[in-house]
Amino acid sequence: MGIRGIPGERIRPVRMASGEIVLRLPEWMRGMWSDLDVPLDTVEERMRFVIGLARKNLDHKTGGPFGAAVFEIESGRILGAGVNLVEASHCSIAHAEMMAIGLAQQATGRYDLGGHGMPAAELVTSTEPCAMCLGAIPWSGVRRVICGARGEDACAIGFDEGAKPVDWTEALRQRGIDVVLDVRREEARAVLQQYERMGGAIYNAGQGR
Amino acid sequence: MGIRGIPGERIRPVRMASGEIVLRLPEWMRGMWSDLDVPLDTVEERMRFVIGLARKNLDHKTGGPFGAAVFEIESGRILGAGVNLVEASHCSIAHAEMMAIGLAQQATGRYDLGGHGMPAAELVTSTEPCAMCLGAIPWSGVRRVICGARGEDACAIGFDEGAKPVDWTEALRQRGIDVVLDVRREEARAVLQQYERMGGAIYNAGQGR
Repeated sequence: MGIRGIPGERIRPVRMASGEIVLRLPEWMRGMWSDLDVPLDTVEERMRFVIGLARKNLDHKTGGPFGAAVFEIESGRILGAGVNLVEASHCSIAHAEMMAIGLAQQATGRYDLGGHGMPAAELVTSTEPCAMCLGAIPWSGVRRVICGARGEDACAIGFDEGAKPVDWTEALRQRGIDVVLDVRREEARAVLQQYERMGGAIYNAGQGR
Repeated sequence: MGIRGIPGERIRPVRMASGEIVLRLPEWMRGMWSDLDVPLDTVEERMRFVIGLARKNLDHKTGGPFGAAVFEIESGRILGAGVNLVEASHCSIAHAEMMAIGLAQQATGRYDLGGHGMPAAELVTSTEPCAMCLGAIPWSGVRRVICGARGEDACAIGFDEGAKPVDWTEALRQRGIDVVLDVRREEARAVLQQYERMGGAIYNAGQGR
């Protein structure tokens, strides 16, 4: 992993027409949320859980400083959870929010988590979504988004969060999706700062530079 | 597939902690682009190829009316290609552009297609990217985006393309990514209209409605 010229890089030949994208959680996450006996009732508890995922992703050196999960709002049941796996999965799509959404959808067999008959679901993310993950939210069917750190906190350690609509929270609300910001923001930001101190990879695209 | 109440629906139980997202191309696409003997030299030819993918996706009833591919700009070599597979893969992430980007990255083993030493790559898409795919582009490392139909053409048949920055082409150019619009637009739009006539699923999230 890592880019050319960085020790540890592995350039693989193009496997033509492999035909599938596989995005796999690290071993330490397997089975984690099925073992939660006690539902996480409050947004504070849910945020603590996803910040914990982000921190463990650094401790295990399995990816970037981001964690997310999709919860049923009422029951607190976890439908899917993820961490940032861009480097490990050789795929820039593998942000924590995308993992949580995709896993929740494939686990339930429903591409629309807001489809008729589905209990209302929410995305809880340790850092405000980047432009890609923000764009993914309306398609996903979640009814609420809970954010820890701000996008500017991610930018402060070097990430390019992309071009978002100026009033992105309002754009979601217009689609019937509520947004709550700054839940345990300092705790979430501390994980970003820990990553910076570790010298973790900032996986913005190089554009040939 | 399909939503509750629609024949053919399959509700699957939540498989806790399955641990991976798998997004698989339909059988008819396997090996397709490794069989291309003649490189596609021009953007017109490349667009014809991805519009063909979109059309075949309707003919085979494997998904929505969108096709995309990542090409090496100079050589015309295809690194990855995709079609819309939201319904078949039970995953709202599985847009044509995301499939093409993810497959190109996992095939080359590089999460940044613009990383040092990589030949410049471009995304060719039969319809202008939605907000999610637009947000995915800067992370992917492609240096150019070629679009067929406009977002408004997708909206005209019922899709919600999401909230994009007002001047999204300029936002990409500021990141060093060139954009070309309206390549074979009418041909691309014809596939959208064919999908509408077929009564194809409009997989916007229901938000409980």
